[in-house]
Amino acid sequence: MAADFSITRRVQFAETDLAGVLHFANYFRYMEEVEHAFWRSMGLCVISPDGDRTISWPRVAVACEYFAPAHFENELDLRFRVMHVGSRSVGYEIEFVRDGQPIAVGKVTAVCCEMKESRFDPTEIPTAIRTKLLAAHQPAQSEPRP
Amino acid sequence: MAADFSITRRVQFAETDLAGVLHFANYFRYMEEVEHAFWRSMGLCVISPDGDRTISWPRVAVACEYFAPAHFENELDLRFRVMHVGSRSVGYEIEFVRDGQPIAVGKVTAVCCEMKESRFDPTEIPTAIRTKLLAAHQPAQSEPRP
Amino acid sequence: MAADFSITRRVQFAETDLAGVLHFANYFRYMEEVEHAFWRSMGLCVISPDGDRTISWPRVAVACEYFAPAHFENELDLRFRVMHVGSRSVGYEIEFVRDGQPIAVGKVTAVCCEMKESRFDPTEIPTAIRTKLLAAHQPAQSEPRP
Amino acid sequence: MAADFSITRRVQFAETDLAGVLHFANYFRYMEEVEHAFWRSMGLCVISPDGDRTISWPRVAVACEYFAPAHFENELDLRFRVMHVGSRSVGYEIEFVRDGQPIAVGKVTAVCCEMKESRFDPTEIPTAIRTKLLAAHQPAQSEPRP
Repeated sequence: MAADFSITRRVQFAETDLAGVLHFANYFRYMEEVEHAFWRSMGLCVISPDGDRTISWPRVAVACEYFAPAHFENELDLRFRVMHVGSRSVGYEIEFVRDGQPIAVGKVTAVCCEMKESRFDPTEIPTAIRTKLLAAHQPAQSEPRP
Repeated sequence: MAADFSITRRVQFAETDLAGVLHFANYFRYMEEVEHAFWRSMGLCVISPDGDRTISWPRVAVACEYFAPAHFENELDLRFRVMHVGSRSVGYEIEFVRDGQPIAVGKVTAVCCEMKESRFDPTEIPTAIRTKLLAAHQPAQSEPRP
Repeated sequence: MAADFSITRRVQFAETDLAGVLHFANYFRYMEEVEHAFWRSMGLCVISPDGDRTISWPRVAVACEYFAPAHFENELDLRFRVMHVGSRSVGYEIEFVRDGQPIAVGKVTAVCCEMKESRFDPTEIPTAIRTKLLAAHQPAQSEPRP
Repeated sequence: MAADFSITRRVQFAETDLAGVLHFANYFRYMEEVEHAFWRSMGLCVISPDGDRTISWPRVAVACEYFAPAHFENELDLRFRVMHVGSRSVGYEIEFVRDGQPIAVGKVTAVCCEMKESRFDPTEIPTAIRTKLLAAHQPAQSEPRP
């Protein structure tokens, strides 16, 4: 897939398990790390004030498929792509690539929420954020596509 | 759903995040905890010798849907069910229930593998294990169902 | 040591590392789990309202010594003891015991703080809490010891 | 302190807790990350073959003092220093620095061990490793100090 954004992440010792591989739950932490790096690359933060509200993005659905294990000190490319931008939600896909070979792929759906004392009320994505998400999602097109 | 097995798990402080809720990746650790408790309840271990081989069960696909956040010190019922038993793979579903209300549901597909120095080769589920998984999956039926 | 309080904790798969043992950083999570269980046993919570303030207990110093490794599915006794109760701080010791043998011992010093938006200002321990901590610390002595 | 080695590490969302700060146990993971990066900088790995043995470095004692909390997305300098090199053990100190200010300091003592199926037998530090550790510990001195 053509990534919108990527980072490199090295597998740390504490993230492995007794089978000698990156523990399957940690892939979701990696997905979040590239997601948040993507937000920073847009000059945004996943927890941010919006007027007198605080906006955050809890996940409503996530998934991961594993093709091959990752090992201690492996360097993984985390390739991040915005798959859809709805009125209240956003979908991402993250490919885990080692030495050019995909070893896992994850999906995340997050919902724009107003956060009040650990409660989350879904709300419209603020325009300033939505514009940036759409720009990331829609690569500049210098010529018309068929 | 009718669970085959369940445990109670309390949300720990270190498992929460700055949004004040159980971090979404930790649900997969909970799924694994009830899965392994289920194996123990059958007198089995997810990493076990089989003759001169070592059998383990890496995941090939996992997913989770979140309906409501969990908070520090919440007691969650983790309701575990075997959904399918194939020749080489097994599928689980785990429901997260708080005060009788489902707050999340997860799915796991694991493959029976022979483990050699952190490599995993898929193999047939040994008969002794398969018999127990099927017994868990198929509740004893003392009378015909309509 | 004579414990004031204890819980049993089983080592989970995700807590092991590729050396096949409970990762050394996770001992601090275990210390926190027994600490918080101790607070619950007193009818208290480590994060709690006190009038219009929120009181919490950040750590200022922690340590652990390791005598023997812990393995997957080991059941550990976490023996918790209040070592000192100051005007603003409290000290704990936690012994990790497997099959009657100590395998590690940890120490924690926590400070009573008023929490304001992720800032922590040290404050006197509220009397109601202090009384309970002292009661746990000082076993009732109905007769003089030799 | 004068560091022998350092890396920058950004605080990730999953590493925070409901108090809004980097959870205290995670500092030990950070210590390990800079320790392992230090080993890589020497062309070494903390788990490595030595003839037909496998050498690893379990911790026997660790500690951390905390001066100020770290927050989500903070960039921390992890300043690593070899404090002693014994015949079988090595001691490290790690300073956590944000914007030039130390916010925590940790200590680690690790022992050189031959690893056999998750057992650890202390052994002399192999000469090739010891030489590199001492070189890191003892900065080249081209002229006498006062």
